[in-house]
Amino acid sequence: MKIGFFGVGHMGAPMLKNLIKAGHQVRAFDLVPELLASAVAAGAESGESLAHTVQGADVVISMLPSANAVRSLYLDERGILNAILPDALIIDCSTIDAATAKDVAEIVAKSGRSMIDAPVSGGVGGATAGTLTFICGGEDQAIERARPILECMGKNIFHAGSNGAGQTAKICNNMLLAIHMLGTCEALQLGVDNGLDPKVLSDIMQASSGRNWSLELYNPWPGVMENVPASKDYEGGFAVNLMNKDLTLAMDAALRSASRTPMGSLAKSLYGVHGSQGNGSLDFSSIQTLFGKIEE
Amino acid sequence: MKIGFFGVGHMGAPMLKNLIKAGHQVRAFDLVPELLASAVAAGAESGESLAHTVQGADVVISMLPSANAVRSLYLDERGILNAILPDALIIDCSTIDAATAKDVAEIVAKSGRSMIDAPVSGGVGGATAGTLTFICGGEDQAIERARPILECMGKNIFHAGSNGAGQTAKICNNMLLAIHMLGTCEALQLGVDNGLDPKVLSDIMQASSGRNWSLELYNPWPGVMENVPASKDYEGGFAVNLMNKDLTLAMDAALRSASRTPMGSLAKSLYGVHGSQGNGSLDFSSIQTLFGKIEE
Amino acid sequence: MKIGFFGVGHMGAPMLKNLIKAGHQVRAFDLVPELLASAVAAGAESGESLAHTVQGADVVISMLPSANAVRSLYLDERGILNAILPDALIIDCSTIDAATAKDVAEIVAKSGRSMIDAPVSGGVGGATAGTLTFICGGEDQAIERARPILECMGKNIFHAGSNGAGQTAKICNNMLLAIHMLGTCEALQLGVDNGLDPKVLSDIMQASSGRNWSLELYNPWPGVMENVPASKDYEGGFAVNLMNKDLTLAMDAALRSASRTPMGSLAKSLYGVHGSQGNGSLDFSSIQTLFGKIEE
Amino acid sequence: MKIGFFGVGHMGAPMLKNLIKAGHQVRAFDLVPELLASAVAAGAESGESLAHTVQGADVVISMLPSANAVRSLYLDERGILNAILPDALIIDCSTIDAATAKDVAEIVAKSGRSMIDAPVSGGVGGATAGTLTFICGGEDQAIERARPILECMGKNIFHAGSNGAGQTAKICNNMLLAIHMLGTCEALQLGVDNGLDPKVLSDIMQASSGRNWSLELYNPWPGVMENVPASKDYEGGFAVNLMNKDLTLAMDAALRSASRTPMGSLAKSLYGVHGSQGNGSLDFSSIQTLFGKIEE
Repeated sequence: MKIGFFGVGHMGAPMLKNLIKAGHQVRAFDLVPELLASAVAAGAESGESLAHTVQGADVVISMLPSANAVRSLYLDERGILNAILPDALIIDCSTIDAATAKDVAEIVAKSGRSMIDAPVSGGVGGATAGTLTFICGGEDQAIERARPILECMGKNIFHAGSNGAGQTAKICNNMLLAIHMLGTCEALQLGVDNGLDPKVLSDIMQASSGRNWSLELYNPWPGVMENVPASKDYEGGFAVNLMNKDLTLAMDAALRSASRTPMGSLAKSLYGVHGSQGNGSLDFSSIQTLFGKIEE
Repeated sequence: MKIGFFGVGHMGAPMLKNLIKAGHQVRAFDLVPELLASAVAAGAESGESLAHTVQGADVVISMLPSANAVRSLYLDERGILNAILPDALIIDCSTIDAATAKDVAEIVAKSGRSMIDAPVSGGVGGATAGTLTFICGGEDQAIERARPILECMGKNIFHAGSNGAGQTAKICNNMLLAIHMLGTCEALQLGVDNGLDPKVLSDIMQASSGRNWSLELYNPWPGVMENVPASKDYEGGFAVNLMNKDLTLAMDAALRSASRTPMGSLAKSLYGVHGSQGNGSLDFSSIQTLFGKIEE
Repeated sequence: MKIGFFGVGHMGAPMLKNLIKAGHQVRAFDLVPELLASAVAAGAESGESLAHTVQGADVVISMLPSANAVRSLYLDERGILNAILPDALIIDCSTIDAATAKDVAEIVAKSGRSMIDAPVSGGVGGATAGTLTFICGGEDQAIERARPILECMGKNIFHAGSNGAGQTAKICNNMLLAIHMLGTCEALQLGVDNGLDPKVLSDIMQASSGRNWSLELYNPWPGVMENVPASKDYEGGFAVNLMNKDLTLAMDAALRSASRTPMGSLAKSLYGVHGSQGNGSLDFSSIQTLFGKIEE
Repeated sequence: MKIGFFGVGHMGAPMLKNLIKAGHQVRAFDLVPELLASAVAAGAESGESLAHTVQGADVVISMLPSANAVRSLYLDERGILNAILPDALIIDCSTIDAATAKDVAEIVAKSGRSMIDAPVSGGVGGATAGTLTFICGGEDQAIERARPILECMGKNIFHAGSNGAGQTAKICNNMLLAIHMLGTCEALQLGVDNGLDPKVLSDIMQASSGRNWSLELYNPWPGVMENVPASKDYEGGFAVNLMNKDLTLAMDAALRSASRTPMGSLAKSLYGVHGSQGNGSLDFSSIQTLFGKIEE
């Protein structure tokens, strides 16, 4: 397949490499020359312009940092929509608000083209290993067309619903992740403050009704689990800043739909405080330290 | 073994039956004559008095509703401590505060007897099926002596630490359970309010980083999962009132140890509001309805 | 002065009457024929079209329910901007988000006209009595031009800053109002649950560091204060739905500026729950009932 | 009057001085020799023992740091109850839990003596200036007997109800204070983050429905108000640690009475986090800094 790929940063670069490794012919574009050069070094062709990047492409993939960037890429006066082949498939892997995702997809659909939203989870590690999870929104047919492409980059492909549903499902999941991570941190701190061993308590809760993904794979207490950020000074992993971005999207969606999210809102406030105290680039499990004790 | 058993209500009665089924000789006591009669009908001897109930017993088990009841049973002027054989083992299965559990066990230890706290999780269903989880606090040797007895009534026996640690671990677990249940409810409501199907969203989150026990075994959205309280008008299961009791114990422990539990405290407030609105005897997953939408 | 007035509903109608009473010549417009007829009956001229309403007007006032309505009135293809005299003053009294207020004012300014945002507090009572508070954003000169007009309708005119600042100040104030109302309700309930008389406790806190506007003028406990909504079945006053609207604006602003508002967010969640349980049209002090006790 | 006075620390010492200044004959006791020496230097007699301190006293006053200290002073084996004259009046000014206050007073009453709880607000400044507020619990007659003594040390004497009610009213008030201080901080930060001047916004809210004691007398934003802790690096005033102590008492009371306090609980968590980050001895308005922005 011929693929046009926009955005080859931390996430986009390893995704692009996996597409090339799978035998696809990829033409890349990025506003940052160094990133584009890296992509070319990895075997991509260099997109000379927005239009050149999608010329003749069967599939267009974008991995951009914001809703404005996505809207602008496809729909601006200088946007690429009309340069894309009428029967090409457009896959937007950016994490943005569902309203924009739906809106852009509708305008794309009016031009006769097909688009899905396919935000990912799994981080740079998953992108590099080709084990990302894609949570997709769009029509059945479009998702099925995308599946073999996505399977070059990930191992779980979910179909959440119509356009925008991929974005909605991702932020619901990540809000829940923030909540059970915080709950896990509080439970561990409460136990330790009352004399329990964090490893013993973790094992008991993981085997009981407290069980959750944070306990199972990502224990936030330093030393309980090897090879997780908590045991590496909270480096690597999924940054507090990114969690704050996703929680902002979740809260924005909740305001639009008048949904009540008391626990999600508090999680947003706590991650906001934590990020503002200089921890934005640490892994999100570092929120454990917000509950630590010092001499008062 | 000869066992003296105090408290044969909803939980105690099926636990006692499993002990009898395993061949133990059990003498029961309860302040409510009907409950005691039921126990006798199930094969227990009738304890004529507190002292008579423990006469000659190798093991004494209590399953009582409050810390005061436990303290009173063992330590009051008319309490049974001195009537218990010096080498008998005492197992308190009540859910009470860790401070009382530790305190009573210390006084018991001074008399030369051995005691463990062994609060359970698994509810009436688990008690009946003999699949309870026991979370124990006490000395290694005492836990090992208790193990074969506990295995007649449950399948998971955890050793959390010294006396009181069983109580602490249980409330840490149940606080975390309340938090991820609430988080799951909020995530499902946010998704549905934004057009997602609750079953599809549940499957996606369960396969992603939102995964937790509530999603896996106890989905709170009616109809997503069969045979859970949510699909039976929130009847059966673990009552809101009991969750409120456990959260009160968790908050009490947090106040004593000056631990910060913002998410746990909010969970307590939300379950408190929910219970006070007439839902105290419903299953705790009914907190989903606190987030439901009606015409505003 | 000749005034064009858009939006003569619950708030706009009494504001318009006070302008007429002060001797101004007002031409009114509303999409609802009955409302327009009422305004005409009160002495206004009938605006036959958007453009006709502002023809020859020295001042244009709008009191509309949403940001979209404001944007549309002034800036749509069929919007009225170009029909307004170049030296007329535009006063938007709607409560909308500050970003839209600023945006519209900037476009208006490019056309050479002058606009201020002047959201009100004081409710229908204040609008009728002519005692509203106007919290204004815009240039000094424009505020001073508006002052004599606003003084026909209100008694406090604040200048919060540049365009949009009136909206920002209003939502900051109303978020704080929601927080101290909730705090007052919780403190009263805690006191009463522990045996205090709500009137005695109110007097003590009002004379101490707990003092706040809710205690002083708007006690939420039924019977403590005469002539407040709490003593009239929570009818009249400032509706829960309107508080939810203002809290939504506050939360939206906080998301845009990445401000942490844990107490404000929780207030939003609690008012959201309260509104969704059928209390949307009650006075906002009815949140007291969320904390009431019933048999559990 | 002859007065026996227990506890002459930060608060007790200036209170004692005001009693002496008013002409009373005061005998002091403290476990810390330096504090006792200071009291003697200020004109008090030295209590040689607990019993000697109350010998012949018409009034006994205590100002102690904890419930255990109060219970121990009056009721221990070596406690002073029986050494106190049968018709003496006992005034406990300590801030402790209402349950203990009530309990101790009941035992004192059985001995035929009269006791009131009279916790104070106003801090060291108020104690020195003789302008404390006393919030009293006890029988009318006892309060009236205490009034002329209390008026030597304070200017507001409130009667909240029966024994323990003074303690309850004080923690209700201080919980409400914590809540509106936090709300004020959040509102100011939200306004400033959106371009408002903190002084202008403070003036607007103080003149509107956001009005509260924190805005009126204790603005938490540095520089808005002179001579408040916020303008003196948050030094002096009412320490975060003391607010945490009072919030712990409030939460403890709420757990005992099953009262829901979502805002109060969150205030406790936020003050707990703030104190644990090294701010325990700063003034409680320093919670403003929890919301400050830094580069993320």
